[in-house]
Amino acid sequence: MNDVLDPLLDPTSKGYPASAPPLRRSQIGAQGWSVLDGDLPLPLAVIKRSALQHNLQWMQRFCDERGIGLAPHGKTSMSPQLFQRQLHAGAWGLTLATVGQARVAVEAGARRILIANQVLADADLRAIAALKTQHEGLRLLFLLDSIAQLELIEARQPATPFEVLLEVGLPGGRTGCRTTEAATELARRAHASPAVTLAGVECYEGLAAQGDDAQDRAFTDALMQRVTEIALLADRENLFDNDEVIVSAGGSAIFDLVVPGLKPQLTRKVSGLLRSGCYVTHDQGNYRRLVSLVNQRVGCSDAEGLQAAMEVWAVVQSLPEPGLAILAVGKRDISSDLGWPIPLQVIARGRRTLQPVPADWTISGLNDQHGYLRGELGSLAVGDRIVLGLSHPCTTFDKWRWMPIVDDAYRVIDAIVTCF
Amino acid sequence: MNDVLDPLLDPTSKGYPASAPPLRRSQIGAQGWSVLDGDLPLPLAVIKRSALQHNLQWMQRFCDERGIGLAPHGKTSMSPQLFQRQLHAGAWGLTLATVGQARVAVEAGARRILIANQVLADADLRAIAALKTQHEGLRLLFLLDSIAQLELIEARQPATPFEVLLEVGLPGGRTGCRTTEAATELARRAHASPAVTLAGVECYEGLAAQGDDAQDRAFTDALMQRVTEIALLADRENLFDNDEVIVSAGGSAIFDLVVPGLKPQLTRKVSGLLRSGCYVTHDQGNYRRLVSLVNQRVGCSDAEGLQAAMEVWAVVQSLPEPGLAILAVGKRDISSDLGWPIPLQVIARGRRTLQPVPADWTISGLNDQHGYLRGELGSLAVGDRIVLGLSHPCTTFDKWRWMPIVDDAYRVIDAIVTCF
Repeated sequence: MNDVLDPLLDPTSKGYPASAPPLRRSQIGAQGWSVLDGDLPLPLAVIKRSALQHNLQWMQRFCDERGIGLAPHGKTSMSPQLFQRQLHAGAWGLTLATVGQARVAVEAGARRILIANQVLADADLRAIAALKTQHEGLRLLFLLDSIAQLELIEARQPATPFEVLLEVGLPGGRTGCRTTEAATELARRAHASPAVTLAGVECYEGLAAQGDDAQDRAFTDALMQRVTEIALLADRENLFDNDEVIVSAGGSAIFDLVVPGLKPQLTRKVSGLLRSGCYVTHDQGNYRRLVSLVNQRVGCSDAEGLQAAMEVWAVVQSLPEPGLAILAVGKRDISSDLGWPIPLQVIARGRRTLQPVPADWTISGLNDQHGYLRGELGSLAVGDRIVLGLSHPCTTFDKWRWMPIVDDAYRVIDAIVTCF
Repeated sequence: MNDVLDPLLDPTSKGYPASAPPLRRSQIGAQGWSVLDGDLPLPLAVIKRSALQHNLQWMQRFCDERGIGLAPHGKTSMSPQLFQRQLHAGAWGLTLATVGQARVAVEAGARRILIANQVLADADLRAIAALKTQHEGLRLLFLLDSIAQLELIEARQPATPFEVLLEVGLPGGRTGCRTTEAATELARRAHASPAVTLAGVECYEGLAAQGDDAQDRAFTDALMQRVTEIALLADRENLFDNDEVIVSAGGSAIFDLVVPGLKPQLTRKVSGLLRSGCYVTHDQGNYRRLVSLVNQRVGCSDAEGLQAAMEVWAVVQSLPEPGLAILAVGKRDISSDLGWPIPLQVIARGRRTLQPVPADWTISGLNDQHGYLRGELGSLAVGDRIVLGLSHPCTTFDKWRWMPIVDDAYRVIDAIVTCF
């Protein structure tokens, strides 16, 4: 098997110095490379260690203080090295989106995995069974939201039942049972089925986040009330199959609002699980805006809250007309699905000083390999470097197969790889 | 160095069968895997060999018949195996967007490379010089569009001059000199500079493609007239430094319209070079629409023209309310930047028959890991599979580290890897 923990990197990996020899990931931090000094080719995505460490601790403490577990969504980074840091910081386990992703989490050492999706294909069910056989003590749960799905699982006549969480949805949403009746009927069927173990209840609120406090609260309250109602009904009928019932919710946008609903009063012990993913690097765009409201609600200043840990550096390749700079960075390098990148700082060519960019500088668009920086560009010159913030960590992580971790002086002190 | 031509793949690679042993890429075609039979986990991007072969030949013949060379843009696929097929089909060389990408093309055997970007960073110029030293006979050109860029190149006092193409732009465009005067002045400076060899003239028309025949023609004619004018001026002043002058243009949307402008009547021999990239797999969305107009203009039926060679297969994971199916496929698997995926066919669970989907079925959105299929879904069931077409090959290729090549019965007969 390829070594996902410490693979060999070389100049065929984007962002790797052209003249450096092939190195194991773990050797990169000792090379003395400096992003500021131009030791690595641009564009380059970097992760700042200080902000990363802060975020790992902040979110774990957030959960610890509220008596809930953290199962960070690994699909954000798909980085075994970040998975290890999340587990080391105290995470209950990891959330993933697919069985293939779960395999990478297992390689990283996770032994409690929640696949926040309906699993039903034969190949996937076989793969889960094999993973559990290969890794003793591995707990792997996935979501159930229909009798049709349950029947597909039953058709396999599994030797060991699959652990499932009942997914609760709302009309107009994504997956999940739409009514209390449908959910309760499915819980009864699951409890009665030898093919699955009903381990708890799950929902996902993140897609509905508007960044409007009253609306977000109203939506989340309604969803979590539905979850609580179904958990109580299932508990009353003794439909849960474990001594401890898992109740899980939580993306990265309005995660504080679901917390009160993660601890319903059942006859069995309840384990509340939050599944936020983007917190690990946070961002300078979409999640910054949404989490600023979280900060207000939980009484934390933005300075004390989650910090943007990821940046993408790019070079000015052309200044073809007044007010326009073309950057050598594009859709292949940074997210563009939840907003354009945000220019943060400029470093004049050959200099080592980061200057904040003027407030009117914006990125107005990206092509595959080019970015459009607009504003009163003043003395900006071809060859200057621009530090970009981003909106949506997930779709920036997946543009890179490795990233350096840097200290506050942008010296490379470690590296991660990704497994998308 | 990692072997980009025949790397080891294993179940940590998305789309790889969970129970298969690690295999070299070149071994995959002999395993007898069938996509239809569910031997590979979904979602899965596949390339159809018949359409791929057709496209390779179609585009090469298009260029051959017009007496121009083809330098396919490699940034589309970043696949060394597709690079080799393009070169084998008769391509002059390859186009790439960055020096890092060019290195992968060199590994694939390319010995003529056009970097369709301004190169100027020290690390990149050093890397080009090193590549040329390591690979005798390697020709590597890049774009020049400003005196500022030229001065950065000169500051390095290169032992061997860099070969450059003068980039011609238009106001409101991306990179490239905006006026004939600026372009001519830069050509004079480049000719006089010991740091560069002025090898020709270049432009890029693709961003302006509207899919409106009259508008596209008017825009392209104006741009190519500007290119011709500058080529003639530079020729008259003997500013080109080689016996043969390269004139290059061409994306994948309106490439036929630039062809007449690739052969200006100069005193030196002219080598016209088209740089289309997306043609290699074509698509079922944006490029299908635009290339249908190309077909009309060149007198080729759509059935005879480029064929969509790439599909993404996904499973129905939930049917939560009437008219909505949630597919286990998302932004991480298929392009979403130039239009949503297009449902093409449905395969009932456990069956092997592909049925065309009803005309009203559409994908209305993608999350990171989920897709929304809407329409009158009739008997569609959880576990059924949907074959999706796509809009924009580039941003689908970069979601996959490997892809199977399949025959018309969806048997896996070969595999490619990508190097993003």
